[in-house]
Amino acid sequence: MSASSQEHSTAGAYVHQGEDFNRDTNYIPDRITADGRDGWPVEAGRYRLIAARACPWANRAIIVRRLLGLEDALSMGLCGPTHDARSWTFDLDPGGVDPVLGYERLQQAYFARYPDYPRGITVPAIVEVATKKVVTNDYPTMTLDFSTEWTAFHREGAPDLYPERLRDEIDEVAELVFHDVNNGVYKCGFAGSQASYDRAYAKLFARLDWLSDRLADQRYLVGDTITEADVRLFTTLARFDPVYHGHFKTNRQKLSEMPVLWAYARDLFQTPGFGDTIDFTQIKQHYYLVQTDINPTGVVPQGPDLANWLSPHFREQLGGRPFGDGTPPGPPRQGEAVPADHTASLG
Amino acid sequence: MSASSQEHSTAGAYVHQGEDFNRDTNYIPDRITADGRDGWPVEAGRYRLIAARACPWANRAIIVRRLLGLEDALSMGLCGPTHDARSWTFDLDPGGVDPVLGYERLQQAYFARYPDYPRGITVPAIVEVATKKVVTNDYPTMTLDFSTEWTAFHREGAPDLYPERLRDEIDEVAELVFHDVNNGVYKCGFAGSQASYDRAYAKLFARLDWLSDRLADQRYLVGDTITEADVRLFTTLARFDPVYHGHFKTNRQKLSEMPVLWAYARDLFQTPGFGDTIDFTQIKQHYYLVQTDINPTGVVPQGPDLANWLSPHFREQLGGRPFGDGTPPGPPRQGEAVPADHTASLG
Repeated sequence: MSASSQEHSTAGAYVHQGEDFNRDTNYIPDRITADGRDGWPVEAGRYRLIAARACPWANRAIIVRRLLGLEDALSMGLCGPTHDARSWTFDLDPGGVDPVLGYERLQQAYFARYPDYPRGITVPAIVEVATKKVVTNDYPTMTLDFSTEWTAFHREGAPDLYPERLRDEIDEVAELVFHDVNNGVYKCGFAGSQASYDRAYAKLFARLDWLSDRLADQRYLVGDTITEADVRLFTTLARFDPVYHGHFKTNRQKLSEMPVLWAYARDLFQTPGFGDTIDFTQIKQHYYLVQTDINPTGVVPQGPDLANWLSPHFREQLGGRPFGDGTPPGPPRQGEAVPADHTASLG
Repeated sequence: MSASSQEHSTAGAYVHQGEDFNRDTNYIPDRITADGRDGWPVEAGRYRLIAARACPWANRAIIVRRLLGLEDALSMGLCGPTHDARSWTFDLDPGGVDPVLGYERLQQAYFARYPDYPRGITVPAIVEVATKKVVTNDYPTMTLDFSTEWTAFHREGAPDLYPERLRDEIDEVAELVFHDVNNGVYKCGFAGSQASYDRAYAKLFARLDWLSDRLADQRYLVGDTITEADVRLFTTLARFDPVYHGHFKTNRQKLSEMPVLWAYARDLFQTPGFGDTIDFTQIKQHYYLVQTDINPTGVVPQGPDLANWLSPHFREQLGGRPFGDGTPPGPPRQGEAVPADHTASLG
């Protein structure tokens, strides 16, 4: 394992003096597929998604699972926001133990499969319930597989988040957004030198300007419905003002000062399946409490005021059909709702 | 000397675990007066003001000296933004030496007078040129004395920043602003615990709301002209978005999101003697490079975009006479202008 870090993991120090932030993008490559070709067939009740509301990469999986209605087929366990140096933990659960796996630490699922697992213990991860072994933590593939391999368990009215005719364009946009925005904010925050930060900042805001142009007269990133590309951008935008703007110094403007992106983000936030997965309290706790090399005091900011996430966005004037031929998901399942005081409220 | 810190000094660590930030407000109490009762009579050419553009407390003295036109009577030396643990330094001057005092470090002036000076080496300080000894660093008294004791050297058209009939009200407002705002932002940023931060944050924003109400239909804080009270609030507001919002976590809103205060701050910024003293580059360098216990990476943010400081504020519609019966100061003296790329520009 190199000096690179997986921030949604537990690798310890995030900033390496003089170095760019270099995300370890080597994940367990197994896929859960309809045909079970890797030995992991799609099957209801066989697997458990382990996520954390704090983490933007895990947030993708939480959103897509909910949009597609996979709750009955794939249960979900949630780690708390403040993992330690070794592992994400189930500290939010009664007794500090995941009720299905019986684990205190997600690390146990990794070690059950690979006793010497050398990389970061990351969320999201899918664990086989019977063996309690991790199957995969490859988050970019995971959500696409939810859309394309888990179709037998999609709810009635599930949207097509990865339509075949748009896949090239979705992949292309997602790739740019990954490097410059999703991971770009981390390159700013974990930069080991001023020059490294300056480069990442320039790329981030150039890409945000490009996205603003693209979204100025088009409601969603690709086509006229919500796709995987929107999910991936959204989870970064939701964290922009509460965390990245100050903690990662991505501060040319706040998201709320970039009119097109701000309206776009609010539109998605107010769409069932997006905003109702966002726990601003856990998000802030995670970054400000865990990343002590950039916030040694451990003080978590009280701001920003979040009520404005619920203000009118007027994006419906651009047309678009959020769920295409499908329908919005119903309310979150029992036990899966974000506490009201952890999210945006009209207050 | 207690564990308290003088942030505009050089006391080292700023955050004390578990403690509130406690500013050492013990200064050298000597006053330079018209009657010379402390042994320091007002006299042209006798003294030198040592300031730093980065420091909000020193910024007050820079503004008042300029508004009153004291440049010919009282010369000014400027320390660089990034003092070390021992002292502010003259690193901006050719050879790293103040051309009048011949000092590399402001500390030398303090030690020339008090060889065992135990407190922080703070700006602003006034030094007697002949003896090279510090006379005073009592900044709250210093600017009031510029207004009331240095009258013989005021320029033609100098405003009355401390009119007798308004002194009680100015003092009262300034006291509230000092505790909750000027020093309040430091109490947020240097809080040694979450509870300490939370208390300071609540007081800061309650006071900013109070100031917004007060300034909603009144152009200046006290009376209908610029006074010392405005100078004192302004130097904190100018640093709010570039530094305090992110670095000190005073992030309920940006200044630019608080409409009344933002218009008030722009009005002053665009008034000769205010904005032309603000060096945003040095301000950001100071906080982000010196206070390594809250910014260990030493990366200085590129944001925020500052062009909007020059946007129309429309405060003139509230009436008010900025300089009362006086006139605005002329442009900054030769050698005293802030470099164009360090300030807000229409770009």
